[in-house]
Amino acid sequence: MVKKVGVAILGLGVVGGGTYQTLIDHHDFYLKTQQVDLTVEMVLDKSTERLDALGISAEARAKSIEEVIANPNVDIVVETIGGVGAARAFVTAALREGKTVVTSNKELICKHSHELEEIARRTGCGLYYEASCVGGVPIIRTLLDGVQANHIQKMMGIVNGTTNYILTKMANEGADYAETLKEAQRLGYAEFDPTNDVEGFDSTYKLSILSSMAFHTKVPHTHIFREGITKVDGKDIAFGKELGYTLKLLAIGKNTEKGIEVRVHPTFIKSSHPLASVNDSFNAVYMTGDAVDDVMLYGRGAGALPTASAVVSDIIYAATHSDIKYSTFKNKATAEKNTKFITDFESAYYLRLSVADEVGVLAKMTSIFAKCNVSVVEIAQKGRASETSRVPLIIITHATRENSIKKAIAKINETNYAKVEAFIRVEE
Amino acid sequence: MVKKVGVAILGLGVVGGGTYQTLIDHHDFYLKTQQVDLTVEMVLDKSTERLDALGISAEARAKSIEEVIANPNVDIVVETIGGVGAARAFVTAALREGKTVVTSNKELICKHSHELEEIARRTGCGLYYEASCVGGVPIIRTLLDGVQANHIQKMMGIVNGTTNYILTKMANEGADYAETLKEAQRLGYAEFDPTNDVEGFDSTYKLSILSSMAFHTKVPHTHIFREGITKVDGKDIAFGKELGYTLKLLAIGKNTEKGIEVRVHPTFIKSSHPLASVNDSFNAVYMTGDAVDDVMLYGRGAGALPTASAVVSDIIYAATHSDIKYSTFKNKATAEKNTKFITDFESAYYLRLSVADEVGVLAKMTSIFAKCNVSVVEIAQKGRASETSRVPLIIITHATRENSIKKAIAKINETNYAKVEAFIRVEE
Repeated sequence: MVKKVGVAILGLGVVGGGTYQTLIDHHDFYLKTQQVDLTVEMVLDKSTERLDALGISAEARAKSIEEVIANPNVDIVVETIGGVGAARAFVTAALREGKTVVTSNKELICKHSHELEEIARRTGCGLYYEASCVGGVPIIRTLLDGVQANHIQKMMGIVNGTTNYILTKMANEGADYAETLKEAQRLGYAEFDPTNDVEGFDSTYKLSILSSMAFHTKVPHTHIFREGITKVDGKDIAFGKELGYTLKLLAIGKNTEKGIEVRVHPTFIKSSHPLASVNDSFNAVYMTGDAVDDVMLYGRGAGALPTASAVVSDIIYAATHSDIKYSTFKNKATAEKNTKFITDFESAYYLRLSVADEVGVLAKMTSIFAKCNVSVVEIAQKGRASETSRVPLIIITHATRENSIKKAIAKINETNYAKVEAFIRVEE
Repeated sequence: MVKKVGVAILGLGVVGGGTYQTLIDHHDFYLKTQQVDLTVEMVLDKSTERLDALGISAEARAKSIEEVIANPNVDIVVETIGGVGAARAFVTAALREGKTVVTSNKELICKHSHELEEIARRTGCGLYYEASCVGGVPIIRTLLDGVQANHIQKMMGIVNGTTNYILTKMANEGADYAETLKEAQRLGYAEFDPTNDVEGFDSTYKLSILSSMAFHTKVPHTHIFREGITKVDGKDIAFGKELGYTLKLLAIGKNTEKGIEVRVHPTFIKSSHPLASVNDSFNAVYMTGDAVDDVMLYGRGAGALPTASAVVSDIIYAATHSDIKYSTFKNKATAEKNTKFITDFESAYYLRLSVADEVGVLAKMTSIFAKCNVSVVEIAQKGRASETSRVPLIIITHATRENSIKKAIAKINETNYAKVEAFIRVEE
C-alpha cells in the first residue's frame, strides 16, 4: 500500500536546501514508517551553484514555474523562496493547477493566506505552512489538531531567534545592543539589514498567523502594536534581573470578552516563568486554553534542518491524508465582523527614572502616580548620587492602562527633579 | 456543512466528568469553529450520584455497554474508566461494532493497543488516545503529525505529576520523602495506595506508548528498566543542587544504532536544562530528532479539564477527519524482529559515599574507580568528620557502563574506609 508522491522544491536557499537534503536522506525511512515513496521530481532555482552543490540532475532542473506545474509527477510544490513577489505568483499558479503547496513563507501566509486558501479550496488541494512559524516546533499542527477543544485565551511567544539571541547575550554578558548586534551579524544570527527582525516585523507576521488560528478570526498584522529591541539598554536588563525579571521580545495575543489584544514588544517576565529560560536562538510559544490550562512548545525557531523538519512533516501529512483542514477563520482578508481590537491595553510597567537625590522627591513622584491612577508595586533606588546629582530609580507598577502610564510619564518629565529614562512592559 | 456526531462516555470519573462538561460548555463553540455538532447521546456509569451531579437525563443513562453500542446515534465512544478489566471489554465491543473509540487509558493502550488497533482496522474505525499520555499536552499528535519527518533519537519525559510534585516539594522545602508523600496524599496529588506512581509503573506505561510511536517499533513496558522515587533521600537533592543538578523522575528512551534503551528512574539533570524547571504537577517531554534537533512540549499532565482537552481534541479530530492513521509500529504485541534492547546502558553517575576522614583515602578510592574503568568528573567533600568519623563525599562520574559502576560500588563497599550510601544516574 505504498503511495508514490512527487515533490518539487522552489528555491534552494537555507530552508529549501535543508528540505531537499532531508527528503533524500530519509527516503527509505519514510517508505518504511509512513508507507510513502517521496521523490524530488523537480527543483527550481536560478543559481547553478546551488543546484550543483546539491547534485541535482539535469532533468530535475526546472527552467520555469510553468514547467514545474505542467509536470504530472509533481503532486506537492514546496515554496521556500520567501517574500511576496515570485513566491506569491508561483504558489498561486501551483494551487490553480491543483498542486498541494507546502510553504515556509510567513510573510506570504500572513498577508495572502486568504486569497491562497480560496484557490486551494476551489481546486481541492492543500495549503500547509507549519514551517512559517517557529521553525521545527509543530505549533500550527497543535493549534489545528492538538488543542482545538479550547478557547485559547492567551498566547505569548518568543518567535524570533535573532532578537532572542541578542537579548540573551546582552543579559549574560552585560553587553550593549550595538556591539551584540554586530557579533550576531558576524556569526550569521542576524542579517546585514536586521530591520525585519530587530524592529519586530518578523514577529508580527508570525503573531498574525498564530493568533488568527488560535482566535478563529483573521488578525491582520497591521493591527499588531509593534516595538522592536533597538532601544533596549543593557542597564535595564541588569536592573530587571536583580528584581527577578527577564527581558524577552514577546509576541502577545489575548482574547477576552473585551476583545482581541495583539502586540510585539520587549517585555519583562518573571525569571521563574518557563519562557524566561528560552535562550539564544531557541523559540517557544506559551498558551493558555480554557480546558488545557498552560501549554508550552519549545524548540529551534530557525535553521536549515529544524525548519526542514516542519516542511517535510507537512509534506508527509499532505501525502498521507486526503482530508484537508483549512483555516477556521474562513480565509478572510480582514477580521470577522464585530471583532474588537483593544488598543488601550492594560499592562504592568517597569520604569527607570533618573531623580534628584533629595528629600521629598519620592513623595512628590508617588503622588503623581496616584493622581494618574497608577498603583506602584515596588520602588528600588539603585545607588546614590555621585558624579552627577541624579540617581537611577526603578519603579514597577501594577497593571494599568497604557494611557494612564503615559500620562504619568509626561507629568514626571515636566518636573525638574525627575525624568523617565526607560519604560518597559511587564507581563505575568 | 455542519456534521452531526454523537458521543457516548463510559465512566464519569475525573476525566469522564471533565469531558462531559467540556463537550456541553463548548457545544456552540465547536459548531462555529469546527463545523461539528457534538452531542452526548449516552453515558454509562454505575453511580447514580455522579449521573445526578452532572444532570444526565434519564434517556441518556445507558444500562449496559450493549445499549451504548446498539444506539445508532452514537458515533464515538469515549472510554474513561481506566484499568484493563471492563475498559478492555467495552472498548473491544465498541470497536467490533464499528464505533470509533477515544480513550484516556494508558494501561489499556500500553498493554492492548495491538489487539484493539487490529479490530479497529478490520471494522474501519479509529482508536485515539492522546489523553493516555501527559494530560492535555498534544504529544501523540506531535509524534504522529508534527515531527514525523524525524528519526527521533532520544526522548526524556517528566510524565508523572505525583512524583514530580513530591520531588519539587522535597527540593524546595528540604522535606523528606515520607512526609512529602503524606502531604501529597492529603492534597489529592497522590493516591491512598501510591505504588503505581511512586514506583514508576505509571511512567513505564507512558514511556512504552510514546517510545513505541517515536521509534516505530513496539516497546513493551516489561522491557523498561524501572526504579521509583521511594528511596530518594532529601540530602542528595540538596547536594545535587549545590553542584548544579536537579533531581527528576525521568522516562528516558534512546534509539541509536546499537539499539533501543528505555528506562524510568530518578535522574539528575543540569539545573539549566529546560526539564529542570518543570515543577509541581506540570509534565513535559523533551525530544531530539535528527532534523528538528531539540523540541519540548510542556503542560499539565493530569486533572479533569486538561485531560478532557486531549479527549475532546481527539473527538473533534475523529469527527472532522475521515482518514485514520494507525500506529506505524503495526499493532504488534512485541517488538519488531531484530530490535535490540540495551540493558547494560551507559550513564553518568552521582554517588554519595561516607568515608573515613583520613589521609590517603581519596587516593585509594580513585584507584578503585580507575581499575573499574570509571572516570571521575568531580569529587566534593561535604563538611568534615564531627560526631562520627565519617564524612559525606560526592562523586560525579563520566558516562560509563552500569556494570562498571556497580563493580566499583561493590569494591568500595568491601573496604573498611568507605561505603556508597546513594547512587543516582545523571543525564545530559
